[in-house]
Amino acid sequence: MRIVYADNAATTSVSKTALEAMLPYFTEYYGNPSTLYSVGREARKALDSARAKVAKAIGAEAREIFFTAGGTEADNWAIRGAAELRQKKGRHIITTAIEHHAVLHTCEDLERHGYEVTCLPVDECGRVTAEQLSKAIRDDTILVSIMTANNEIGTIQPIKELCAVARERGVLFHTDAVQAVGHIPIDVKDLGVDMLSMSAHKFRGPKGIGALYVRRGLSLPPLLTGGGQESGRRSGTENVAGACGMAAALEEAVEHLEENMKKVSALRDRLIEGLLKIPCSRLTGDPDNRLPGLASFVFEFIEGESMILSLDAKGICASTGSACSSGSLDPSHVLLAIGLPHEVAHGSLRLSLNECNTDEDADYILQVLPPIIQRLRDMSPLWEDHLKNQKRDVT
Amino acid sequence: MRIVYADNAATTSVSKTALEAMLPYFTEYYGNPSTLYSVGREARKALDSARAKVAKAIGAEAREIFFTAGGTEADNWAIRGAAELRQKKGRHIITTAIEHHAVLHTCEDLERHGYEVTCLPVDECGRVTAEQLSKAIRDDTILVSIMTANNEIGTIQPIKELCAVARERGVLFHTDAVQAVGHIPIDVKDLGVDMLSMSAHKFRGPKGIGALYVRRGLSLPPLLTGGGQESGRRSGTENVAGACGMAAALEEAVEHLEENMKKVSALRDRLIEGLLKIPCSRLTGDPDNRLPGLASFVFEFIEGESMILSLDAKGICASTGSACSSGSLDPSHVLLAIGLPHEVAHGSLRLSLNECNTDEDADYILQVLPPIIQRLRDMSPLWEDHLKNQKRDVT
Repeated sequence: MRIVYADNAATTSVSKTALEAMLPYFTEYYGNPSTLYSVGREARKALDSARAKVAKAIGAEAREIFFTAGGTEADNWAIRGAAELRQKKGRHIITTAIEHHAVLHTCEDLERHGYEVTCLPVDECGRVTAEQLSKAIRDDTILVSIMTANNEIGTIQPIKELCAVARERGVLFHTDAVQAVGHIPIDVKDLGVDMLSMSAHKFRGPKGIGALYVRRGLSLPPLLTGGGQESGRRSGTENVAGACGMAAALEEAVEHLEENMKKVSALRDRLIEGLLKIPCSRLTGDPDNRLPGLASFVFEFIEGESMILSLDAKGICASTGSACSSGSLDPSHVLLAIGLPHEVAHGSLRLSLNECNTDEDADYILQVLPPIIQRLRDMSPLWEDHLKNQKRDVT
Repeated sequence: MRIVYADNAATTSVSKTALEAMLPYFTEYYGNPSTLYSVGREARKALDSARAKVAKAIGAEAREIFFTAGGTEADNWAIRGAAELRQKKGRHIITTAIEHHAVLHTCEDLERHGYEVTCLPVDECGRVTAEQLSKAIRDDTILVSIMTANNEIGTIQPIKELCAVARERGVLFHTDAVQAVGHIPIDVKDLGVDMLSMSAHKFRGPKGIGALYVRRGLSLPPLLTGGGQESGRRSGTENVAGACGMAAALEEAVEHLEENMKKVSALRDRLIEGLLKIPCSRLTGDPDNRLPGLASFVFEFIEGESMILSLDAKGICASTGSACSSGSLDPSHVLLAIGLPHEVAHGSLRLSLNECNTDEDADYILQVLPPIIQRLRDMSPLWEDHLKNQKRDVT
């Protein structure tokens, strides 16, 4: 059966380049980078080189990049670390209602430890404004954490402006850029952020590795203590193969960024145009400021899970709400935050593309999805009522 | 040049079996295990199977195994989690003076947050006794963390007895079994531990993955919060390939445990016998209760780093003190804790073998090392003094 993988915001396949970059470090240069002898020195060189590549890809210095186990650890570290670092100044943190759970649940955990968290609401496109942020900052505000791009609706935030507001008020700024790095241009110095989270498996690197950018001069306390790896900031024997895979994937992504963005956004726009022809459908997220590969919708009178399973039966991999929260029956917090009623939010669909996707993939989705939606609606009494009401309104 | 890798306690090469178990999950079954469709379900199946294998290898249930980024995260989580969980009962933690830094530095960090830590001293073999532990337990003791086997001197602790003491007093027991799992028989139910840390790259799995065993019924709060993976205990997209590699490596290690232990301890004993013929040398650690692959020594009038570099020039990979602390000039805390004077501790050597090592490896080390030591001593004024004093004492 034909497989169309359209869930690249959940995870991606590892690229050939990334896999090849990893392989020598499993069986050949497998040494511990902290050791003095040749096998270890080769591993150290590879790790240094990976760090330099990741740094270059986001406009940072190598010493500002700290490898972690992934985006979640990076988010936890940034938030918990900043909270500890600045606790004498205050205990107020600002974030938004549409952050990833790695940020929101970490903030909630801090609330249980005496911190106060303001969750900025977003508009119907999922955007927050510099003005909103400015009003929310208090004397005891120590940290702002706002994601660069949303994982469910693709909305890109005006990070540079938001960051300028925080900086002016002496407040640290963290951004979860897990969905953005490797997909849109990111320059940490231009943005002005203090900390930025990345995850390799969102840009065709392996799972289990990510990084936190920490601006030089910011002495973020470690989350994991031990052997003192990563300049004492993140202990644990370094995942050399993972770091090499991450760096190779990111280097490749950034090298082809412009052409990938062009290709992927054209596919996305075809999907958006084609699928919005379905009655009672709408695009979620910002129509203009959105991730190149992310097409997200709600289809009224549809239950998302049934749609996903029907698509799966046709070989299409897609998601409803956040992949990370698919275990839950509650509609996604992001879709509720942009003002969708519960029943509408349940019918959400996310198609997330990357450079591996083709025109044929889009054709196939456009061919397969509308009849699925029709069939699911045909089975729904609510849809029947809706049709009746429509008829009545016309007469 | 011939390479003899004798630093398997620092890290190991990934086994063919482990690498083959990982490969399909990079490029073929790369789905996010939290997703509903086929590509994700295959990843979920693989993850479940990996968890079951790891559990079986240590006598646990699958639901008691939580994957982490490695041993350091597992240690941090166990200690920080237990401290938080039991803080209402008390804030006293007991550990030993020879733990890995992932335990010691985490305990020190907790001291800065109002906890009190007792570091039990060890005897000259590096052992702690049940009696010592019993005396140290107080009404406000909430956690005991004692490693199963030491990474520098190979001493194996009487975990079962120690654990019984803690259990009798209602105190949680964690063991860092990073050096033990896959190398000696481990059965968590027989030992009676509440938590046990593992690291894949110590038994020929990949770096960047480990696990914490958490006894069923113990509601250890998470260290990393977010998407709620690992039954809500450890968030972050699961490192599927890493988990598969870890499980395959551990399954293989446990399957061949008896023959590996026999082979490796014979090599170890040859090294010990041969190298103790060098004057002013001694074995460190317990002569009887020690890891099968770990031969550790001190050679007086020698500076460890020079010895490592000289060995490296001959293709032998070995370490002095803990590999993790090799960045530091201080002698290892473990060697000081077993009562060695600073100047003697500086001359430490650790040779750590696994089933990949051969008789020829041992022959080569026995051939190469003694002349290196002789040459280094010949350059040392202290050695000259020592010889003069010896002469004088004889006359």
